[in-house]
Amino acid sequence: MTISLVGIDADDTLWHSENYFAVTEERFRSLLAPWIDGADAGVRLLERERANLRLFGYGIKGFTLSMIETAIEVSEATVGIEAIEAIVGWGKEMLAHPVELLPGVAETIAELAQNHRLALLTKGDLFHQESKIAESGLADYFDTIEILSEKAPANYQRVLDRLGVPASEFVMVGNSVRSDVLPVLELGGRAAHVAYHVTWGHEVVDDEVGDWFVLDRFASLPDLLAQL
Amino acid sequence: MTISLVGIDADDTLWHSENYFAVTEERFRSLLAPWIDGADAGVRLLERERANLRLFGYGIKGFTLSMIETAIEVSEATVGIEAIEAIVGWGKEMLAHPVELLPGVAETIAELAQNHRLALLTKGDLFHQESKIAESGLADYFDTIEILSEKAPANYQRVLDRLGVPASEFVMVGNSVRSDVLPVLELGGRAAHVAYHVTWGHEVVDDEVGDWFVLDRFASLPDLLAQL
Repeated sequence: MTISLVGIDADDTLWHSENYFAVTEERFRSLLAPWIDGADAGVRLLERERANLRLFGYGIKGFTLSMIETAIEVSEATVGIEAIEAIVGWGKEMLAHPVELLPGVAETIAELAQNHRLALLTKGDLFHQESKIAESGLADYFDTIEILSEKAPANYQRVLDRLGVPASEFVMVGNSVRSDVLPVLELGGRAAHVAYHVTWGHEVVDDEVGDWFVLDRFASLPDLLAQL
Repeated sequence: MTISLVGIDADDTLWHSENYFAVTEERFRSLLAPWIDGADAGVRLLERERANLRLFGYGIKGFTLSMIETAIEVSEATVGIEAIEAIVGWGKEMLAHPVELLPGVAETIAELAQNHRLALLTKGDLFHQESKIAESGLADYFDTIEILSEKAPANYQRVLDRLGVPASEFVMVGNSVRSDVLPVLELGGRAAHVAYHVTWGHEVVDDEVGDWFVLDRFASLPDLLAQL
């Protein structure tokens, strides 16, 4: 069957991202240890992030503000100002972190680009995503790069409409079942899931098995596409 | 001459934005009054915002984080935690603020859309800009909506290339000479400046007069286009 467009997610599919959040959350738990148990600190932070999504959207700046709010709440405003300073510093450190490609990604993207039209489809903070894409050195392999505010079916459909690609000829690849797989299946497209070793709580779905392809690693993607 | 595309800026051109920043900055100056003179607080904040642009890009979340950093710096970490709480609250208030269209905008956009292909070209935070565009009720009048990380000539050129519009047939309208006028002239397009009553320090340019049109208000745009 025809594949007219291969959509590829970026964070945790092409390069590391969630592990930096995990490291920072670990530091955050230690910071709040005088007031709350580590696991509970994580729960409170995720609740705060989810409540703020409607205002902040995705990305490190919103995450940083959510950490600050959670620290103030959990400590009942007794946390020290140096803790706030530390949190802001962590956020800036994350934003400044160099892009680290996942294994095999550079070669695989170069190979895919020879036979397929590629779309980089990511969500999150426009400015930070553009910085990472530029730094990755991969931008030229993609026919189009779209940074979406949310990976909802309507947003995918808009991209397909603009490129004139029917959903039935679209394959999406990414690490999030919630964002990269389910909305694409809903449109009648196909999807391949490549797990990353950490998944953000908000992206976790109950059913991690379904009518989609599962890849052991990103470098297996050309073989899968050849078989379709 | 042919006008194939009319580009229109959003913040402070279609709806209020900078005045909310100005109100918040006023509160911020009062907050720091125990440590620093109001005007100096504004200078320190702008310096901090500019230093952070490379990491944060534009938008309210970055502004909020810059206020927090400035408060800690200026007070030498003696500012109270309740001040941080207040600053985060201001940021959220700004993000949640309803969209307020500028006078005459709704009618003018409806009128322009009858005779012109319109592009909404704005910069800043993807998530917040999309929210405001949806809430404005104006989205359907635009053929395309592009949220840019920076209004540089190359970003304008990319939009024109995708739409197949030569720069010579493009007119851009907005309140910032730096962002809406100069980069478009550089490409060989034309631009009209409609001043807003507040301009962010970073957008101020030395020369506010040049080879572009000046409109007294947004509602004068159809007349200008009719004369071109």
